Parts: sequence; structure tokens; C-alpha cells
Amino acid sequence: MNWQNGFIAVDWGTTNRRAWAVDPGGQTRDLLEDGMGVLKVAPGGYTAEIDKLRALWPGRPMMLAGMVGSNRGWIEANYVPAPAGLDALIGALRRPAPDVVIVPGVSWREGSNADVMRGEEVQLLGAVAAGSAPPDGPVCHPGTHAKWVRMQGGAIGPFRTVMTGELFSMLSRHGILQDRLSGEVAANDSFRAGARHGLERDDLTAELFSIRARYLLGVGEADDASYASGLLIGTDVRIGLAFGGDGPVTLIGRSDLTALYAAALELAGRTSTELDGERAFLLGARAIAERLS
Amino acid sequence: MNWQNGFIAVDWGTTNRRAWAVDPGGQTRDLLEDGMGVLKVAPGGYTAEIDKLRALWPGRPMMLAGMVGSNRGWIEANYVPAPAGLDALIGALRRPAPDVVIVPGVSWREGSNADVMRGEEVQLLGAVAAGSAPPDGPVCHPGTHAKWVRMQGGAIGPFRTVMTGELFSMLSRHGILQDRLSGEVAANDSFRAGARHGLERDDLTAELFSIRARYLLGVGEADDASYASGLLIGTDVRIGLAFGGDGPVTLIGRSDLTALYAAALELAGRTSTELDGERAFLLGARAIAERLS
Repeated sequence: MNWQNGFIAVDWGTTNRRAWAVDPGGQTRDLLEDGMGVLKVAPGGYTAEIDKLRALWPGRPMMLAGMVGSNRGWIEANYVPAPAGLDALIGALRRPAPDVVIVPGVSWREGSNADVMRGEEVQLLGAVAAGSAPPDGPVCHPGTHAKWVRMQGGAIGPFRTVMTGELFSMLSRHGILQDRLSGEVAANDSFRAGARHGLERDDLTAELFSIRARYLLGVGEADDASYASGLLIGTDVRIGLAFGGDGPVTLIGRSDLTALYAAALELAGRTSTELDGERAFLLGARAIAERLS
Repeated sequence: MNWQNGFIAVDWGTTNRRAWAVDPGGQTRDLLEDGMGVLKVAPGGYTAEIDKLRALWPGRPMMLAGMVGSNRGWIEANYVPAPAGLDALIGALRRPAPDVVIVPGVSWREGSNADVMRGEEVQLLGAVAAGSAPPDGPVCHPGTHAKWVRMQGGAIGPFRTVMTGELFSMLSRHGILQDRLSGEVAANDSFRAGARHGLERDDLTAELFSIRARYLLGVGEADDASYASGLLIGTDVRIGLAFGGDGPVTLIGRSDLTALYAAALELAGRTSTELDGERAFLLGARAIAERLS
């Protein structure tokens, strides 16, 4: 494999897949974005999928990251224990087919604490390698399963996952709050009121019901979806700051989510910088490719 | 209406309905239990349903409690503001048809705090009226929406609802934990480990993901369903004790649930007594009927 003539980078998740061409100068262009996440690929179907991807830019090696390397994906790339830097990831790459590598996830254990990530590690280490995140300090990656990471000497150190996105999604689709949470979320006054509650108080599972009660009593927030999102994100930030350490927080992810976390961090008196997750992923893929011969 | 010759008591919820005959001596017998909750009764269908119930024990008045008095039920019985004792409930009874009363729910407001209950008020005040719960002190009613109530002078004082049951139900049916939470919950070592975490730490939304991470890393609990239940109930009890005040806690509800809460309270160093919710409901219905002429 010669990675210096350009390569294909694939972020292959549970429900979606996205591929880019990364040319030798580091320029990137979109190759594909579709719904062929790992849950859609039949057992034995990966060879054909790889052929399809390869046809989009023939003759280049391919780097896959995300759930494709999980036990529900193509082939399991075992978690690399934290602290884990680029060299640790590269040392544990899986090679399921010629000219194809799968990037492993990262795990963390300390006493009864245990955590895993898969996909975010490329973004985190890419951001640090490119100087877009400091080598030491807290990084937050919002999402379905938000990650709070203490970067240590350029490596991924201890980290903690908060199920914020998944819980909001569940609450807005099932159960007693669903009718109140169907709207778009924005960093408005209702969001800030919820975030303040989540930052200052530790009664999330009670305050969620209060949304319903206030509505029934006619004293509800103007925007309950944003209040609930703020409450969950404020709780998330409270947990994350207690875990993640001092200093400015680097937020990496979808810009709509990093903006909400930045608003909650501001209420907590903390500064943050935002970095687009797609950009960080490609920085990480390049940083790995540069170290491959 | 003459309530002293016996009456029909109906606990009419969202999805289920249950009716008892309460004879003049206070003896009760089951009349009906079915799935005709308020979501199943068509608009305009209550008159026919009442006729059916009345045919089970003709010539007796009927007392309805629960969601039948909500805006999704037959006719709305507005919430009585706490503090609310039996007299306040009786003063706000609705009479949607001859010889039929609907018991109102109770609301609480203080600053930005707001809460509502509907159905539990009969159980709480019944327990106190019969001497099965003290007139002052904390009462907890576990369930889909667990209630922590500060009883004050025999009346329902400030209260706070925790969405413990609903969240456990969602997590066991949707999302990343559902495969791990399908088993029966018991007050075993896994439950106690989860409850201890919930009592001592305030990071529920992160610890839930740890269940998944520990499983993936092969260091999971023996019984993740009980651990998750313990985590949610421990969190609930932490919130409830901070709200509910000092002294022994009276637990009113389904015996499988009160047993789990009693186990968590024991870990918190608190004593509790358990009272069956159905028994409490009938005590409350009798206490109301005794005050009606």
C-alpha cells in the first residue's frame, strides 16, 4: 500500500456511511454519503461494499473507522486501552483485505469505571495532531453518546460517555414528554434555563417530569424542547467538567451540537472552542496515513 | 346518594381500570379488572361504561379516581393545590352523572417548582386516615412516575415526581441498553451496587453508558437489568430524600416496587415501612365515602 498518493477515508457508522478522497496534498472531496451503515450490510457483504467504494477512486488504499470495526461490523478491531495516541492506534490497525485498514476504538478502565469509544478517536487525535486542540486538557465530543476526554500529552486519556443524545431522542419519541419535545432545539432563553438547572442541580429525572407538570398547570416554558435539551446538556456539562479537568474546553462535532454545548459551558463560566467533526475526522485520517508507509 | 349502604370504587388509569365493591362494613370484593383505560374509551363512551360498572352492583354510588378525571379522561377534575387533605379533595369532587363522583388530583407550586399527581392522592390520604402512615413525614409512591411527598398535618404537602419507572421502561425497550435490560429485576447484589452508585454519585446519564462499556469489555455486572434499576432507584431515592425530609419513609405501592425502594433506603441508612397500594386506595376511598352524606 502506498498511502502517499492519496487514499480513501471512510467514516462507517451504525446507520450511515461517508467516504472522502484525500489527495496527496491533503485536499479532500466527498465520494459518497449513504445509509449503508453496518446494520444494513449483510454478513459477507463487506467485500462487495469495498469494491463499490474502491471504484469511486481506483488504486488507492482505504482507511475505515467507526462501527465497521465493532462486533456488529466487518471485523472486530479490539479497543486500544487509554492512554492512546496515534502510534497506539496505528499499532493496532486491522487489515481485513488488501489495501484496507480498520482503525480500532479506545477503551478506558480505572477501578469500577469503564468506557469505550469508536470513531471519535480519529477526530480527537486528528485535532491535536493539526494543532486545533491542545495536547493536554478537556475535549468534549457531543452526540448520541457524548464523550468527555482528558487529553494527556497528545494522547487520549481517561474519558467518560454521557448518554445525552440518546436520552433526548428517546424522550422525544416515546413516553409522556414526546408531545412537548417535538420542536427544533435552539440556544434560546428556554435552553439556557434548562442548562442552568442541569448545571446547578442534580435532579434530572425529577426535573424532566416538571416539564409536563408546568405545562399542565399553564406555567410552562415557551419552548419545552429547548428546555429539555438544555437540562440534559447542562447535566452533561456538569458531569463532564467534574470529570474532564480545568482549562478551556475543545468541542468537536456537528456544529449545531457544539453550539449548544458552548452555550451551556458559557453559563458554567468556561470558555470553549468549536471544531467541526468532519474536519477533525479528515485531519485524523491524514495524520494516520502520514505515518503509514 | 347514600354512601353508607356501600359503594363502588374505581381506580381508572391511562391503560387499565379496576373496580371494587366496598360494603357498609368496609369489606371489599373485586368487581372488575380490565384494559379499558381512558385511552380506550371513545369520546361519549363513559355513560355506557358507567352503566356496565353499575350493573355489577346495582343501586350503589360510584367513586372514580385516576386519569378518568384528567383532560384525557371523562371530565376534567381540576388539581387541588397542596397542602391538600381529604376535605379539600371532597370540596373539589366533580359529579359528571347522578350518583357518580370523580376525585380530583393535587398540584404543587413553589417558585419554579411545579408538580401534579392524580390517583396517588387517594392512596396517600387513605393511608394517613387509617393510621397506616404518619400525618407528618416523607411518603414515597414508586411507579412509572414515582412521587415523594412531605405529608404535613395529615395533608399532602410539597411533592416531587421522579420519572424512574418510565425511564427504565424506555431504556429496556429502545436504544443501546435494551438487550442488557430485558431480564427480571431483583434486589440482589447487582441491584445494590447500582443503588449505591445512584445514592452516592450524581452522574446517572454517564453511568448508564458504563453498563454498555463494561459489558463490551467483559467486566460487566452479573445482572445488568437489576444494576440499571438500582442505579435509577438509587438516584430517585437520593433526590427524594433531599426533598422529602427526615424520619422513616412510608412506601405505598406495588409490593415488588416498594421492596426495591426499601432496599435502596436501607443502603441510605433510612428505615421504611411498606403498604400495598391497592389497600391504601380502598382505605382512601372509604375515608372519602365516610365524609359524604
